[in-house]
Amino acid sequence: MTPFTEIFVPDELADAVSDRAWLAALLECERALVNAQSLAGTVPAHAAAAVAEACDPSAFDAADLARQGRASGNPVEPLVRALRARVGENARWAHRGATSQDILDSAAMLVAREALRLIRSDLDAVGDSCAELAASHRGTVMAARTLLQQAVPTTFGYKTAGWLVAVDECGARLDEVAGQLPAQLGGAAGTQAAFGENGPEVARLYAAELGLREPELPWHANRLPLAWLAGALAATAGAAGKIATDVVLLAQTEVGEVREREGGGSSTMPHKQNPVGAVLAIACERHARANAGVLLESMVAPHERAAGAWHAEWHALTTALAATGGCIAAVRRSLAGLEIDAERMRANLAAATLAEAERFDIEATRPDDYLGSAVAFVDRALAQRRR
Amino acid sequence: MTPFTEIFVPDELADAVSDRAWLAALLECERALVNAQSLAGTVPAHAAAAVAEACDPSAFDAADLARQGRASGNPVEPLVRALRARVGENARWAHRGATSQDILDSAAMLVAREALRLIRSDLDAVGDSCAELAASHRGTVMAARTLLQQAVPTTFGYKTAGWLVAVDECGARLDEVAGQLPAQLGGAAGTQAAFGENGPEVARLYAAELGLREPELPWHANRLPLAWLAGALAATAGAAGKIATDVVLLAQTEVGEVREREGGGSSTMPHKQNPVGAVLAIACERHARANAGVLLESMVAPHERAAGAWHAEWHALTTALAATGGCIAAVRRSLAGLEIDAERMRANLAAATLAEAERFDIEATRPDDYLGSAVAFVDRALAQRRR
Amino acid sequence: MTPFTEIFVPDELADAVSDRAWLAALLECERALVNAQSLAGTVPAHAAAAVAEACDPSAFDAADLARQGRASGNPVEPLVRALRARVGENARWAHRGATSQDILDSAAMLVAREALRLIRSDLDAVGDSCAELAASHRGTVMAARTLLQQAVPTTFGYKTAGWLVAVDECGARLDEVAGQLPAQLGGAAGTQAAFGENGPEVARLYAAELGLREPELPWHANRLPLAWLAGALAATAGAAGKIATDVVLLAQTEVGEVREREGGGSSTMPHKQNPVGAVLAIACERHARANAGVLLESMVAPHERAAGAWHAEWHALTTALAATGGCIAAVRRSLAGLEIDAERMRANLAAATLAEAERFDIEATRPDDYLGSAVAFVDRALAQRRR
Amino acid sequence: MTPFTEIFVPDELADAVSDRAWLAALLECERALVNAQSLAGTVPAHAAAAVAEACDPSAFDAADLARQGRASGNPVEPLVRALRARVGENARWAHRGATSQDILDSAAMLVAREALRLIRSDLDAVGDSCAELAASHRGTVMAARTLLQQAVPTTFGYKTAGWLVAVDECGARLDEVAGQLPAQLGGAAGTQAAFGENGPEVARLYAAELGLREPELPWHANRLPLAWLAGALAATAGAAGKIATDVVLLAQTEVGEVREREGGGSSTMPHKQNPVGAVLAIACERHARANAGVLLESMVAPHERAAGAWHAEWHALTTALAATGGCIAAVRRSLAGLEIDAERMRANLAAATLAEAERFDIEATRPDDYLGSAVAFVDRALAQRRR
Repeated sequence: MTPFTEIFVPDELADAVSDRAWLAALLECERALVNAQSLAGTVPAHAAAAVAEACDPSAFDAADLARQGRASGNPVEPLVRALRARVGENARWAHRGATSQDILDSAAMLVAREALRLIRSDLDAVGDSCAELAASHRGTVMAARTLLQQAVPTTFGYKTAGWLVAVDECGARLDEVAGQLPAQLGGAAGTQAAFGENGPEVARLYAAELGLREPELPWHANRLPLAWLAGALAATAGAAGKIATDVVLLAQTEVGEVREREGGGSSTMPHKQNPVGAVLAIACERHARANAGVLLESMVAPHERAAGAWHAEWHALTTALAATGGCIAAVRRSLAGLEIDAERMRANLAAATLAEAERFDIEATRPDDYLGSAVAFVDRALAQRRR
Repeated sequence: MTPFTEIFVPDELADAVSDRAWLAALLECERALVNAQSLAGTVPAHAAAAVAEACDPSAFDAADLARQGRASGNPVEPLVRALRARVGENARWAHRGATSQDILDSAAMLVAREALRLIRSDLDAVGDSCAELAASHRGTVMAARTLLQQAVPTTFGYKTAGWLVAVDECGARLDEVAGQLPAQLGGAAGTQAAFGENGPEVARLYAAELGLREPELPWHANRLPLAWLAGALAATAGAAGKIATDVVLLAQTEVGEVREREGGGSSTMPHKQNPVGAVLAIACERHARANAGVLLESMVAPHERAAGAWHAEWHALTTALAATGGCIAAVRRSLAGLEIDAERMRANLAAATLAEAERFDIEATRPDDYLGSAVAFVDRALAQRRR
Repeated sequence: MTPFTEIFVPDELADAVSDRAWLAALLECERALVNAQSLAGTVPAHAAAAVAEACDPSAFDAADLARQGRASGNPVEPLVRALRARVGENARWAHRGATSQDILDSAAMLVAREALRLIRSDLDAVGDSCAELAASHRGTVMAARTLLQQAVPTTFGYKTAGWLVAVDECGARLDEVAGQLPAQLGGAAGTQAAFGENGPEVARLYAAELGLREPELPWHANRLPLAWLAGALAATAGAAGKIATDVVLLAQTEVGEVREREGGGSSTMPHKQNPVGAVLAIACERHARANAGVLLESMVAPHERAAGAWHAEWHALTTALAATGGCIAAVRRSLAGLEIDAERMRANLAAATLAEAERFDIEATRPDDYLGSAVAFVDRALAQRRR
Repeated sequence: MTPFTEIFVPDELADAVSDRAWLAALLECERALVNAQSLAGTVPAHAAAAVAEACDPSAFDAADLARQGRASGNPVEPLVRALRARVGENARWAHRGATSQDILDSAAMLVAREALRLIRSDLDAVGDSCAELAASHRGTVMAARTLLQQAVPTTFGYKTAGWLVAVDECGARLDEVAGQLPAQLGGAAGTQAAFGENGPEVARLYAAELGLREPELPWHANRLPLAWLAGALAATAGAAGKIATDVVLLAQTEVGEVREREGGGSSTMPHKQNPVGAVLAIACERHARANAGVLLESMVAPHERAAGAWHAEWHALTTALAATGGCIAAVRRSLAGLEIDAERMRANLAAATLAEAERFDIEATRPDDYLGSAVAFVDRALAQRRR
C-alpha cells in the first residue's frame, strides 16, 4: 500500500507483506522444494545443499527481478534464472519439476501466514481491550441508538461485549483459515508429471518443510484458499470497522462519550482531538474489502492457470492483509487509550429523556428500563472468552 | 432479481427468496415469538393462539405492506399494525417486546436457510456430475492449458476432480454457515429490556421454535452471520463460475472438446449450440459477488441499528442467494448434459504437439508425460467424496 | 429490486424498469426495426404494418418468455418466436436481419432513458430544495465538522450550497450521458451483414424511430454506453448519499439541528422520528454503486458477444437505475420536509466554543470567524444555478 | 502497488504516483499557496520566497513523514511542521490559512494530472496500433464469435476498429476529466475564513499557480472530482481489458490467429509464447476497477471532512491510476508486437463452415456473407480518428 503506507500499516506488518518478504518466501519455497526432493532421494544431498544455500534473499533484488519479470509476467521465472546462475554446476537441481505458480502460490501462503500471525496478535489485543471495557462498564448506563436516534438505555459494557463477541468470532475464523493454508506443488499444469512416481512423496515433504497443509489436490485452478482468506479478512476488517464507527460517533463533539487519549491534532486546529485511530481503521476496512473482492473475482479463472486473474491475486492478497492488519492495529490503538465519560453518557441519555432520566439504572424494575439482560450478556461474553 | 429473473433463477428458489417468502418468514417469526412467550408463561395461551392463527401470510399483501413501510423504512412496522388489527382484542400480545429488527433479522435467517437448502441440493448434484465425469474420464488425456496456451497433458478426469474438490469444500462451508444461522431477539436496542427477567428464556424458546441457533448475544449490531453467508456464497458462486468458464472455453468452436447437450440457439443463427448453462452461471456469479460485497460493507454500521446499512442487507442477501443459486443450477444443467469429445481432446493435444502426440498417454514413462499422479489424484478425490 | 422494492423505489420508476417495461421496450425495438426497413424499402409496407401491430406488449407475458428464454439464455429469442406466431404469414419480416443483442441493447437504452427522465426530475427537485435551503440559510451559523469534530463556524447555507453544486454537476453529466444513448443494430455479430447494402440506411432510420443516437459503430462489443451510465449513476447516488449522511448526522438526538418532518416511527418506539428518507437513500446508494461495478466489469468481454458478461448487464443496469432513482427520491423526500433548527445550530457551536460563542456571526471581523467567503460562495452557487 | 509493482506498472508511471511524487506535489502546493498570497499582497515577498525555497522535496523523507503522520492521520501536518522548521523566522507564513486537506487534495490533482498525461500517451499509442491494425486488416476475413462460438464472418479490421472507437472515446473522456481537475483551497473547513476578504483572490491565484481549475466552490465535502476520475479510469481500463481479452482468446493454441511477438516463456516450458502483455492488462483492470469503487464509496462522507473515507482516497486514487496505466501500457506492448495470422483466421472460419468457407469474402453477394458494412465501418472509424 502506498501512498503513505506508514500512516496506515504497522511497520512490522508492512515488512511482512513487502516485496522483500515475498522474495524471501519465494526462496524459502525453492529451498523447501529441493530439500524435499533430497529427502525423497530424487536430488543428491550435496546438490540440494548447494541450492538451499543459494536461496539467500540478500543476494537478490526484488525490484530488479520484477522488472525482468515483465517478459514472463511473473517474478519466479527470472528468480529461477538468477538462482541457477548462483548455484552453478548444480543449477539443474533448482526448481526441478516445479512451475512458477507452485513457488508463487506457496510463497503467498507463507506471506499470509506471517501476516495473519501479526494481525492475530493485534486482534487479541483488541479483544482484550473490549473485554476490559466490557468488564469495567458492564453497568455504565448510556443511550442505545438506532438509526442514530436515541432509543432506550443500554450499558457501555454491553456495547463493548458485542464488539468482543464479533472480534473473537473473527479470530476463530482466522485461526481456522490460517491452520488450513495449503502448500502448492503441481508442476507445469498441476499433474506433478515431472516428479514421476515421486510426486506424492515430494509434495508431502515439501508441505512439511514449509509447515503448510498438504492439500487433497494441487489448487492451481481451485482458488478457495484465497477465497477463504478473502472472506475472513473482509469480515475481520468489517468487525473492526464497526467498532471504529461507534468510536467516531461517540467521540463527536456533541456526544463526547469517549475520546482517544492520543487523539490527533490538525495542521490548522491544534486544539482538536480527533479519533485518529478509529478514522484510519475506517479507511483501511475499505481497502481490505475491495481487495477481498478482487480475490473472489479471481476464482473464476480459465483452465489450469488464469490469464490475469492469477496475476491480480498477488497485489490483492498483499493489500487485503496489509489493510486488514492496519485496520486492526488502528482499532487497537484507538481502544487502548479510550477514555470513557460515564457522566456524559448518563447526561446525554438524561437530556433526551428529561425527567425520566433518573429512572434509568440497572436496578430499575419498569420493563422498559430493565438492563439485567444486558448485564447478563456482558457476563456471558466475558465467561465465554475466558474459556 | 429482475429483469427476466426466470432466465437466471430456478422457480423454486425465486419463490424461496420472494417478497412473499419474506412475508411468510416475518409472520413465522411473529408466531414463534408469541408461542415462545406463551411457553415461558408471559403471554396467555389463548392470546398466543389467537396471534399465531392471525399469522397467515395469505391475509397480507407484501407489496402493500412495503408501500406502507416507506414511512418507517421497513415492512415490519406496518405488518405489526395489520397483524394487530387482525388479532383484535388480543392485539397487545402480538410483537410484544420485540423490535422490527428482531423479526426481520430472524426472517432473513429463515429465508437464507430455505434458499441454502435448495442451493445445497443443486450443489450436491453438481458434485455428483463432477464425480461421474472424473470417474469416467480419469484417464482421458487432454491438454492442460496455462494462460490459455497448451502446456502439458492432463486428463479430463483430473480437471473435473479439481472441480469436485472445490464444490465439496464449498458445500462443507455452506453447511457450517447454515448450521449456525442465529435467531435474533433483542428488543428495541438489543437489551431484551421489555422481556424483563424472562428475556433469556423467551430468547431460547424463540430460537427453538424457529429451529435457529440461539446466539451468544443478540447480533443487531454484529453482522457476522451475514458476513459468513456473504463469504460462503461468493466462494461457492466463484467455484461454480470457474467450472462454467472452463466449459465455455472447452466448448469453443475451435476447441470443441465439450458441448452442452441442450445448448441454446440464437434468434439469427439456429444452428448454434451455445453453452447456455455455463454462460448463465458466469452472469450469476457476478451478482452473487457484488451483493456479497454489499453485505460485507454493511458490517461497518453505527451503534445499535444502522442507518441504511441494515436496510441495504435485505436486497443484497436476497440477490446473493438467488444469484448463487442461479449460478449453481446453471452449472448443474450444464454438466448434466455435458458431452465429452475424447477424440477431439486427444486431437487438439496432438495438433499442438505434432509427432510427439502419440506418446501422450498414461502409460508413458517419460517424466514429462507422466500422468500417474493426475490419475491418483482423481482416485483420491473420489475416495474422499465417498467418505 | 426485491425484497420490499416498494420501500425503496418509487412506483413509477419501479414500473419503468420492470420486466413489463423491458418487454415493452423490446417490442418497441422490433417495431422500430420493421418500420425502418419499410422506410428503407426493404420490407413491404403492409408487412411492416402487420408486424408493428403485433408488437403489442399486452399480448405477451414477460415471465413466461423469460422461462422460455432459459434455453437460449435471453428473452428475445422466444419473444421473436411468439411475435412471428402472432404475425402469421408475414412472420419472416419480423426481426429480419437483427440479432437478440440488437433488440436487447436498444431496449436497455430505452429503459435507461425513461428511468433517467424520472431520476432527473427527482434530482431537479433535490437541487431546488438545496437551493432553497442555501438561500434561506446563507447566513445561518453552525459548526463545520471535520472527522466529526467541531472545527470552525460555517453556515448551513454554505453546506447546502455544496450539496447543490454536486447535485447540479451530476445532473449535467446525466444529461450528457442520456443524450448520447445509442441504438444498437449490428445483426448476428455486428457487421449488419444480413441488411446488405442497406445496413447504414436501416440503422439510421432505426435509431431515428427510437429517438436514440446512431452510434459510430455497433457497440455489441464496446460497452462504453453502459460504463458511462454506470459512472454517472454511481456518482449521482454518491452525491445524494453524501447529503443523506449529513442529514442523518445532523438529525442525531444529541445534535438535533435538522429533522425530517415526516420522520418514521418504529414498531417499539412510536415517539421516535427517524430520518427515514436519508436512511433509505444511504441503503440505495450501495446498490447503485455495487451494480455500477458489475456494469464496469462487464466491459471486459470476449469477442463479439460476451458469454455471461452481457447477460449480467440486464439486472445490473436495472438495479443501478432503480437504486439510484430510489436514492434520489429518498433524498428529495428528506429535504422537502427538512426542518432546520437554527437556534440549536448556534447553541451546539456555542456549547463547544464556550464564551467565544457570541463572536461567531457573519459580521465578525476576527479572521477565524470570517464567514464572508462562505456566504459569497452561496451566492455564487445560486447565481450559477439560475443561469 | 506491490508486490512486484514493476511487473505491472511502467517505471515512469510508478514514479509519478509514488510517495516521493506525492511529497513533491504537497510541497508544490505549499509553494503555490505562499506565492499566491504574496501576489495577493497578504504575505511579504521575501517571506514567500523563503518558504518557496524551503519547499524542496529532497529535504524531506516521505516515509518518515508518513510515520509521524500516524498521530494526526495525514502526512501534511508533520510536513508543515518540518517545513516551518526549515523556514525559520518566516515559519508563520507557511501553510497560512490552509488546512491539510487543501494541500492533500490539490496534490492529489497534481499527481492525477501527471499520471493521466502518461496514461494518455500510452492510450494514444494503443489507438495508433488499433488504427494500423484496422487499416491493414480492413478486409481480413475471420470468424466473429458470440458466446465464444463462431457466428458469421467479420474482418479483423472491423474488430480492431471497434477497439479503436472505444479507446478514443475513453481518451476524450480522460481529457475532459483531466481538463477539469480543480485546485482545493478552503481553509479549516471550507469557508476560507482565515483568508478573510482575500479568500477569492488567493484561491484564484493559487489555482493559477498550480495550473488547476478554480472550482465553483471548495470541494472538501463534494468528491465529484474523484468520482469522475474513478469512472473514467475504470472505463478506460475496461476498454483496454476488452482488447486484452480478445488477444488472449485469439492467441489460444487452438485458435492461433494472433501472437504477441515478445510473448513470455515459463519457468518450466520455455517453448511457450504466452500473451503476457494481454495477461497483465487483464490483471491490472481488476485493480483499477476495485479502486475506482473505493473512490466512489468515499463520496458518501460526513460533513466537512470525512472520518476515513477521505483517508481511503489516497491509496485508491494512486492504485487506480497505476493500475489503469499499467493496463494501458500492457495493451500497448501487446498490440505493438501483435502478429496476425490471416491464413489461420480464414482456415478457422473454413474449418467451421466446411465447404461454405470459400464463399466468405468481402465480394460475396449473399446477404449472410456481406461484409461491406463492416469494411465501411472501418473506414468510418479511421476517418473519424483523423479528424
